[in-house]
Amino acid sequence: MPLTATQELEIQDLQTQTYSTRRAISQGLEEILYEAFPALDHGFVRVMDYMGNDSSIVQAARVSYGKGTKKVTEDRGLIHYLLRHSHTTPFEMCEIKFHIKLPIFVARDWIRHRTANVNEYSGRYSILDKEFYIPAPEHLGAQSTSNRQGRGKTLSPDQSQHILQILREDAARAYAHYEEFLNEDTNGNIIDPQKDKLARELARINLPLNIYTQWYWKIDLHNLMHFLNLRADSHAQYEIQVYANIMLDIVKQWVPFTYEAFMQYRKEGARFSKNGLMALKKIVKGQSVSQEESGMTKREWQEFTEQLDLPL
Amino acid sequence: MPLTATQELEIQDLQTQTYSTRRAISQGLEEILYEAFPALDHGFVRVMDYMGNDSSIVQAARVSYGKGTKKVTEDRGLIHYLLRHSHTTPFEMCEIKFHIKLPIFVARDWIRHRTANVNEYSGRYSILDKEFYIPAPEHLGAQSTSNRQGRGKTLSPDQSQHILQILREDAARAYAHYEEFLNEDTNGNIIDPQKDKLARELARINLPLNIYTQWYWKIDLHNLMHFLNLRADSHAQYEIQVYANIMLDIVKQWVPFTYEAFMQYRKEGARFSKNGLMALKKIVKGQSVSQEESGMTKREWQEFTEQLDLPL
Amino acid sequence: MPLTATQELEIQDLQTQTYSTRRAISQGLEEILYEAFPALDHGFVRVMDYMGNDSSIVQAARVSYGKGTKKVTEDRGLIHYLLRHSHTTPFEMCEIKFHIKLPIFVARDWIRHRTANVNEYSGRYSILDKEFYIPAPEHLGAQSTSNRQGRGKTLSPDQSQHILQILREDAARAYAHYEEFLNEDTNGNIIDPQKDKLARELARINLPLNIYTQWYWKIDLHNLMHFLNLRADSHAQYEIQVYANIMLDIVKQWVPFTYEAFMQYRKEGARFSKNGLMALKKIVKGQSVSQEESGMTKREWQEFTEQLDLPL
Amino acid sequence: MPLTATQELEIQDLQTQTYSTRRAISQGLEEILYEAFPALDHGFVRVMDYMGNDSSIVQAARVSYGKGTKKVTEDRGLIHYLLRHSHTTPFEMCEIKFHIKLPIFVARDWIRHRTANVNEYSGRYSILDKEFYIPAPEHLGAQSTSNRQGRGKTLSPDQSQHILQILREDAARAYAHYEEFLNEDTNGNIIDPQKDKLARELARINLPLNIYTQWYWKIDLHNLMHFLNLRADSHAQYEIQVYANIMLDIVKQWVPFTYEAFMQYRKEGARFSKNGLMALKKIVKGQSVSQEESGMTKREWQEFTEQLDLPL
Repeated sequence: MPLTATQELEIQDLQTQTYSTRRAISQGLEEILYEAFPALDHGFVRVMDYMGNDSSIVQAARVSYGKGTKKVTEDRGLIHYLLRHSHTTPFEMCEIKFHIKLPIFVARDWIRHRTANVNEYSGRYSILDKEFYIPAPEHLGAQSTSNRQGRGKTLSPDQSQHILQILREDAARAYAHYEEFLNEDTNGNIIDPQKDKLARELARINLPLNIYTQWYWKIDLHNLMHFLNLRADSHAQYEIQVYANIMLDIVKQWVPFTYEAFMQYRKEGARFSKNGLMALKKIVKGQSVSQEESGMTKREWQEFTEQLDLPL
Repeated sequence: MPLTATQELEIQDLQTQTYSTRRAISQGLEEILYEAFPALDHGFVRVMDYMGNDSSIVQAARVSYGKGTKKVTEDRGLIHYLLRHSHTTPFEMCEIKFHIKLPIFVARDWIRHRTANVNEYSGRYSILDKEFYIPAPEHLGAQSTSNRQGRGKTLSPDQSQHILQILREDAARAYAHYEEFLNEDTNGNIIDPQKDKLARELARINLPLNIYTQWYWKIDLHNLMHFLNLRADSHAQYEIQVYANIMLDIVKQWVPFTYEAFMQYRKEGARFSKNGLMALKKIVKGQSVSQEESGMTKREWQEFTEQLDLPL
Repeated sequence: MPLTATQELEIQDLQTQTYSTRRAISQGLEEILYEAFPALDHGFVRVMDYMGNDSSIVQAARVSYGKGTKKVTEDRGLIHYLLRHSHTTPFEMCEIKFHIKLPIFVARDWIRHRTANVNEYSGRYSILDKEFYIPAPEHLGAQSTSNRQGRGKTLSPDQSQHILQILREDAARAYAHYEEFLNEDTNGNIIDPQKDKLARELARINLPLNIYTQWYWKIDLHNLMHFLNLRADSHAQYEIQVYANIMLDIVKQWVPFTYEAFMQYRKEGARFSKNGLMALKKIVKGQSVSQEESGMTKREWQEFTEQLDLPL
Repeated sequence: MPLTATQELEIQDLQTQTYSTRRAISQGLEEILYEAFPALDHGFVRVMDYMGNDSSIVQAARVSYGKGTKKVTEDRGLIHYLLRHSHTTPFEMCEIKFHIKLPIFVARDWIRHRTANVNEYSGRYSILDKEFYIPAPEHLGAQSTSNRQGRGKTLSPDQSQHILQILREDAARAYAHYEEFLNEDTNGNIIDPQKDKLARELARINLPLNIYTQWYWKIDLHNLMHFLNLRADSHAQYEIQVYANIMLDIVKQWVPFTYEAFMQYRKEGARFSKNGLMALKKIVKGQSVSQEESGMTKREWQEFTEQLDLPL
């Protein structure tokens, strides 16, 4: 785990203190607040704060003076109804704030989701930690032959070991050069008094994309579900999936009814094109349809049959 | 005050219950949570939920593992520093959710602030309450002669009374027609069994812009300050200023250091143009500048001298 | 048609002038630029400007130095691929700007789409035109019994005529009071010199929600498709559907490949829940499934069978 | 200049073709369309498309049927008025699309501006070019002693040469390793048939932050001015300033009146705090104020006197 003794103490300190509040709480989320859930070799996901629970969604949808509804089962039914009909604005009424440690190349994909708030640890202002993502050998996949932006079978042990050794050496060398550029040890003392300290904003430019950064990231529940729909998905890069899957579990603790509805109506449902729907209508009537008749391309037809567990 | 007995009970119910939380709290805001602060003749502002306090801003700016800083005075200093230098992202890390009752013509100006989340009471789905904004006589201003979108001196008592009577009669008539269209009494029973109920989404279209609506409105602290900078301002329409000023007081309770910095560096500061700054530099050196020499228009020159309490 | 002679001349003036540009153009959209397409009784939709065409989407997706691809058929294939896989960012690279005249109650629903730019005609600054939406009798629907926010069968001619008469009278009276409040004729002259002009920002508050307003509305193609997906839909209020359908036709002129892909993969496709997909898999294998076994509610089951043209 | 012969031809091809359009054009921008303006050692800024000109801003502010105003001088006056009073929405009605080549560490700062559209060249899908930012010796600044995130005096020639040599060697080595990982030459042929190609999404993670990437970036004029206000500023990192200054010149070509107003009321104006304004009022009355009396901190007082060219 990537935490120093001081960081562990700071976290424990936060977890020990409790306050009295009149606000809605999520018991599931209170229990894991501030906890660092490990991700990849040096990263983590922590929940730093949250606003609202399942009941708050119903409360906002109804523009209530008091709570959501009288009965928990009513709340559940309404949440399913809202998500099923894409009435998404009430889900924007819940908010969550994460502290995340992640490699820069993951951060670069992540930040493309713009409807969120971010404070990143600044390499202009501070010195980055000596932590680099080195993949586990089983995740060193070859370039996929079917999907230009995916990875396929695992590399041979020999090739893997060779690549991992290069990654480790390059990381070590890059960080040594970083320190030389900064001309400053971990206590802030000058290393070589004959030399200047290169500006931090420049010293960092030689560091590789697998170095870790960290940020606070705050988002509403609707936009978080959109993020999870795309990133807790097999088409996303493996390394961001790791984070997204941890966050999906956190959503389950936070708003269990919403999680259930999200899995039912989004994550594990399916979408069909106009041609796909027309083919489906014939098939359920017992008529046969070929790829050519369907109007679908071969690739579409393959995906269509896979979605339905049909033979090609 | 615009609350029914049931609504008052629902609010009291929320205020009575307390929970234990590990989250950061704002003591000032806890005390006024759920309270309905009256606005205009039938409106109100209520805080329904919030995330974070002054310390959370510092915590996010530092991407901390634990709290913001050790000392409260350090938090204050950093918050002033951040706002002074327009480092606004840490202020996005605090969030607040309001329940607001307001006339539709106010809601239409309000909604132009897009970086916020909204759930409005739906006139397609529900029946609107019989509540209309009727200005107090002292707020019935004449069209401003200097500012095409402002109001000037108060109308004469006679003209005021005449206008107010029309507003009251038109509101009463519009609501009577609304009920006739809906063909449904307040208990949901048909009034005239010979007739149909007109669809709610159509029945509402005859209602005037001074009828009240209500919504849940959620926004982060940075965007809220932007809203307050524009709307708690004498150039905004009086009726929206009333709401903005209540919210400004709420910010003071919620995040006192941020409030202080906001007043110091935004609300009560001043901005000068390039020509204004050049004129200032001359004046402080003891040189005289005329409007003509300054490059400013007459209107700009007037504003310039007013900002500095100078004779024209 | 709602245009004055002056307005018609201004439009013709814009349409007559042509310029030479190196920018990508859409021939289809050039032909209808500035044209006012009538909507409802006094409204319209006009395209005032646009950026990009089908080829620009491919160009951006490829981060090209030159054009999108060499062949038009390649452009088409890529656009279908992008939309099918929800790679939506290239569609944000096209932009369109509309001038729209619409009743205020429609504008209020419309503005909920926040990722757009708006300049609305200001009732604080200017005097609103005497134009009110009076529905055609065939659109005076009764409150739906199955959908709390929809409309059902048309009202009887008697009831319709009665309602329409009230709408017309109330509109005329409201506008007469508006003019009395403004105390200003259409040439800007005072009507009653004994009285003041009430501030415009106040005079407007007595006007009903069916009065027309107008705005410039600018949006990117991705967000426009999202808008059209929700508003050119039978669940949207009829009056906003009218506008959305006109805009859908405009998209067809502007970016024909994108339009085709949008209809294929979004508008005329279908989405199934996890339970729906499981039921589908059984049905296509020839197994029977009942509503009870499916895990769907009765309402969901009904929608499921309707989507597939199955008997309930 | 960083362009290949093919790229130059593609650009010339775009520049040679002209079309007839009814849309508003900006003559200044037409002349430089598609041109690659060099930035840093391998980067550039190109305008790929635009929507609107100065007159479009006035047209939108007035919600016009035809053009903005009759006279060019009226357009200019209105634009100055709008910017002076922070009526910013009409400036959102102009849009511009850039093609930019920039080092990744610059891209990471840039992307924090969220109200824009982006398509970035994908390192998951494609192979990155062998181009790294190596600063000119005169830009190798030492860490600033007064500003924790700035750079101060230039390093000694010896230290500079040493650092630059490391940067060059590390870049060359990183790219050699990248090619080895990819196991693919520039024609897409396998280099070592005994080995697999590592997935592109993984091969890239060892590349340093000074490698160049490129993207299409589209933004409206209001948000572009906000970007330029922050990034064409001496507090921004030098490398992003280079890009911002090129874009500021482009704005001057595109919308000359807006540029003029932007410089007058934003870029070259000044903002004073409440305490600063109070001190100013005393000074212009001939009263003396000390730092202590002013309520300002020493740092604020220093900035205050510098803004006014006063002795400390």
